[in-house]
Order: sequence, then structure tokens, then C-alpha cells
Amino acid sequence: MHILILGAGGMIGRKLTAALLAAGGLGDRPLTRLTLADVTAPPQPAAASIPVTALAADLSDPAVAARLAALRAEVIFHLAAIVSGEAEADFDKGYRINLGGTTALLEAIRAEGAQDRYCPRLVFTSSIAVFGAPFPARIPDDFAPQPLTSYGTQKAVGELLLNDYSRRGFVDGVGIRLPTVVIRPGAPNRAASGFFSSILREPLVGMEAVLPVPRETRHWFCSPRAAVGFLTHAATLDTAALGTRRSLSVPGLSATVADELAALERVAGPKALRLIREEPDETVARIVAGWPQDFDATRARALGFTGDASFDAIVRQHVEEELGGKVG
Amino acid sequence: MHILILGAGGMIGRKLTAALLAAGGLGDRPLTRLTLADVTAPPQPAAASIPVTALAADLSDPAVAARLAALRAEVIFHLAAIVSGEAEADFDKGYRINLGGTTALLEAIRAEGAQDRYCPRLVFTSSIAVFGAPFPARIPDDFAPQPLTSYGTQKAVGELLLNDYSRRGFVDGVGIRLPTVVIRPGAPNRAASGFFSSILREPLVGMEAVLPVPRETRHWFCSPRAAVGFLTHAATLDTAALGTRRSLSVPGLSATVADELAALERVAGPKALRLIREEPDETVARIVAGWPQDFDATRARALGFTGDASFDAIVRQHVEEELGGKVG
Repeated sequence: MHILILGAGGMIGRKLTAALLAAGGLGDRPLTRLTLADVTAPPQPAAASIPVTALAADLSDPAVAARLAALRAEVIFHLAAIVSGEAEADFDKGYRINLGGTTALLEAIRAEGAQDRYCPRLVFTSSIAVFGAPFPARIPDDFAPQPLTSYGTQKAVGELLLNDYSRRGFVDGVGIRLPTVVIRPGAPNRAASGFFSSILREPLVGMEAVLPVPRETRHWFCSPRAAVGFLTHAATLDTAALGTRRSLSVPGLSATVADELAALERVAGPKALRLIREEPDETVARIVAGWPQDFDATRARALGFTGDASFDAIVRQHVEEELGGKVG
Repeated sequence: MHILILGAGGMIGRKLTAALLAAGGLGDRPLTRLTLADVTAPPQPAAASIPVTALAADLSDPAVAARLAALRAEVIFHLAAIVSGEAEADFDKGYRINLGGTTALLEAIRAEGAQDRYCPRLVFTSSIAVFGAPFPARIPDDFAPQPLTSYGTQKAVGELLLNDYSRRGFVDGVGIRLPTVVIRPGAPNRAASGFFSSILREPLVGMEAVLPVPRETRHWFCSPRAAVGFLTHAATLDTAALGTRRSLSVPGLSATVADELAALERVAGPKALRLIREEPDETVARIVAGWPQDFDATRARALGFTGDASFDAIVRQHVEEELGGKVG
């Protein structure tokens, strides 16, 4: 089967690419061709045993979206988006990329399928940012998405369009509301959520990290490996079981900062904890207080989605995948 | 104040126009100018005491939307839409008019306000069609909109965009999820919901009407006058009280077909009931079974929205406004 990954250059895109090439297929179907697209061409994976094409593509251009749809991939992973902070800072760019890109893709697939029955599985990465406070401590599956950011709005609209295009038979869509992914590898970034990763990532290599919020702050997480697992499961799922509601809150892990630090201590010892510097930041604390803390995810569990076993497992996964098994 | 009504040629648009001209203002602000727009120019109201302009305008054309925004009306009522059945039959037209029109309007207002602080009150007619089964018997305010039609999808997306454009300060939006309006004046139409009106309207003038569903069928209603009241209240409301959730389920009337017919009998006597011909239609019954039956509407009630007192009042309103007070 031919798989197309849009936004393949990002962290999840690269992990997904590696996982698909390692598995050699999806479910019981062998992978025969892989196309990787992003605004700048993603790196060509080393030593792939199947043809892999990496290309630069601005999905929000309808002509580009048409060329991507014309590839007739059986499965399309649509991860392409600019992040929350950038979509908030640049209103036009956020709508053009995050909503215009999704609309252009859906329309291109519909046009491609107008002559025959081309109707690919489309896995859309939505986000827990579709929910905004106030909400219950544990958000049920049928709670109203009422985003508090333009990014969340663009994702929530994408979910609605995915439902309607799927109901009409133009695509076979599944939307996954990704939890906050920890531990993000690489350098600290300036996202308000960045500290959730950095308070683990930096001490694991002997570096100090700043904690801007109280330790009882609770949030909703998954590891990079769990995120990839949600996406590949979404690609192979029997969508008849989804009905008309194509987007899912998936089983992340609800944990506090204290839970994160306890896991860090169990994996890396008490010296790692001494690298945490508490610097309360009211702005960050206020932003984070508007974010979801826990989800029910009953539907996704019933559909066979599984997340991380524990925060210890999340920390160990990072040590294994990014640090060669060594804690610094 | 200058008021602009988009979709002024429709049933609600005409009733709203008449109500605004009769009241001479909105809240405590006098009406000084009225602009009526629709795909074909709406009729010029007779004997208006203020300047009224009626014009033909396809809102989905960005240049047209820009010209409408340049009028700088203080209040814009956006009622323009093609109906559910047509949006389902013609996918492209539905998205162009119902979503493209709303998007073009929001963008035109944002562009108009980019130089200064133009930020009109925008009253958007959403619909209970944003909700699709399964849902609880009584739908709470924070239940997820999961439409089962393209029309409902277009309205639900409009609600999300209205929130985000309002949050960013580009418009001051309020969305009203209109219940099914009964008694619609005029000839029977072919909407699946048409019988809710015709089983009252036709017997009131001595004509037979077909009832295609069981008498225990429950649905959510408001009169034309209540619909206009919801819209004018939305135009004068203090939106600070709305917070970031700009769309509201309003206090309609939950009633069964049996309730409707009992009201008919009380107003028009037992002879009216003998004009009801039961012709069960499984297709209509199945469609109607997927529609909302009752809403909580707690937020809207707290914000001062009021609906119809009873179904008797709805029937009497029709007799008074459309039949000159006479039951045939």
C-alpha cells in the first residue's frame, strides 16, 4: 500500500515515518510506497527497502493539494499544521495553513474521487486544544469543543468537515485529538507547554530546568510512541464502528507535575530532581489552567486505542530512544 | 443606528424587518437607517419613516461582502442561508453559500475594521441542526454539536468562527440556534419538517393536512414572533456575559404532535382535528427521529431570552397575524 504523510518533517511525522518503515506495513497490508511531504522537503530516510519520495508542498495551495490527491495513496496522514503560538500570533497564516490546508486537501480528494470510487483513509491530527475552559475535571466524549485559541478553532472546524466529508463518502476519515506529547526530543521550545517536557528532558542529561507552575498542576499526556500508535491504529480501524463521529479523544495519561517528577526520580535518581528550579510564572500558570486535565476516552478505549502504561514508561522510552539507554 | 439584514427576503427576514420598523429602534437606540440584502433584492417595505435600501447581494462573493461591510452598520443580522434540503442535495452550493458566505462576511468585517475600531454586533442564525443523534432527551448547553447534515455542519463551523473572530475582537458576535419555526405562513413546502406547520396551518383555513409521524413525536419549536424576539434580544445583549461561547440554545417549546393538535382543537374546535389525515411515512419518521426533542437552554434563560408561553399562544399568534383573527 501507498502511504502519504503530510507534515512528515515534524517530530511526530519523523517518528511515524520511522515506525512505518520498521513495521513494513500497516495492519496486515505491506507498505509498498511512501510519500513524505512538508513545507520544506523532509529528510530522505536512510536505508528504506521501499520507494520513498520526499517533497516540498504547501498544502494550502489547491493545485498542490490536487497533485497530492492524484498520488492516490490508500492512507493519508494529515499532520501538517503550524503550532498554537504561531497561529495565535499570525491570524492569516493560521487560517491559511491549518484550515485552508485541510479544506484544500478534502476538496482535492473529493475531486480526485469524483470519477471513480477513490476514498482514502484520512487520519487527521486534531488536538485537545479543541476544548477550552470551563469544562469538567474529566471531559466526556460528548462534551462540546469550545476552543480558546485560533489553533483549536481550526482543528475543531477540521473535525466537523472530516465528519461531513466522511458521511458523504468522499473520504474515510478518523480524527485523533492528540494529548500533549512528552518527552519532546530536541532543544527547549517557546511553547507555553514546553516545560512539561523540559523538566524531564534537561535533568536526564544533567541540565537545569525551570518549572513555572505549581507541582499540583494536572494535564493530559502521551509519549511520542503512543502518539504514533494512536495514528497507526486510526489508519487500520474499522470505521463502521465510529459512526458519524469521526474524531476521538484518545487514552492519554492524566498526571500532575509532581507525578512527572516522581517518575523522573524513579528513573534517574534524586540528583535529577535537584536540577529543577522553581520559578513561578503567573502568565504560564494562567494559560495552563485553561487546558484540559483529564479525559474519559471511553469510545477510543472501546475501539482498541491504547496509551502509555505510566509516566515511568514515558521517561524510560525517552532514555531508550533518545539517550541510547543512558541517564546523564 | 444603521441595521443591515442579510437574507432579508426570507420568512424570518421579512418578520424581523417589520418588527424593527414597527419598534423604530433596538433597545433604547433609534433606528435611523435599514439595509435589506438577499440574493434577489427584498421587497421595499411600505411606508417606512426612515431610509430603507433593498439590494441584491451574493454574500459568498468577497467583493460583495466587502461592499456590505463598508456600509458600517452597527448591527448586522446574518440570516442568509440555503435550507437544509438544498444544502444536502447540492454539496458545492451549500458550502459556497452557507459556509463561504459566513467566512466572506467575517473576513470583510475584519478588513473593514483593520484601520480603526469598527466591530459591529453580528447576530448569526445558527440552528438546532448543529446537533445530531445520539443525544440526551434534553440537550444541555455544553453538549457537542455533531451535525448529521451538511447544513448543520456549515452552521456549526459558523459558530466556531464566530467565537474566534469575536475573541480576537474583529466582530461582536452572538449565534442563535433557532428552533423549528411554527406556524410558517404560506404554502406547504417540501422540507421534512414541513408537516409540523401544515398540520396546524391547513386545518385553520378548513383544509386537510397529512400527518406522516406518530402523535407522540416530540420536537423543539418557536413561533415566528419568538424567533424575531431571540434575534433582537441577541442584538442588544451585553456580550460580556456570554464570555467566549457566543452561540446559544434558546428557550423554545418542547412539544409533541399530540400537544400541537390539542392546541389546535382548543383554538379552532374539534372540526379542525377532523382535517388531519394520518399517512405514516417511514422515511420522514426516521429523519425526524434524529432531530433534537428538547433543550436545557439554561444560559439563554439566564441571559434574558424568552420564548413562547404555550402552543396555544403559537396557534393564536398565527390566527392573529396571518388570518386577520379569523379561524376558517
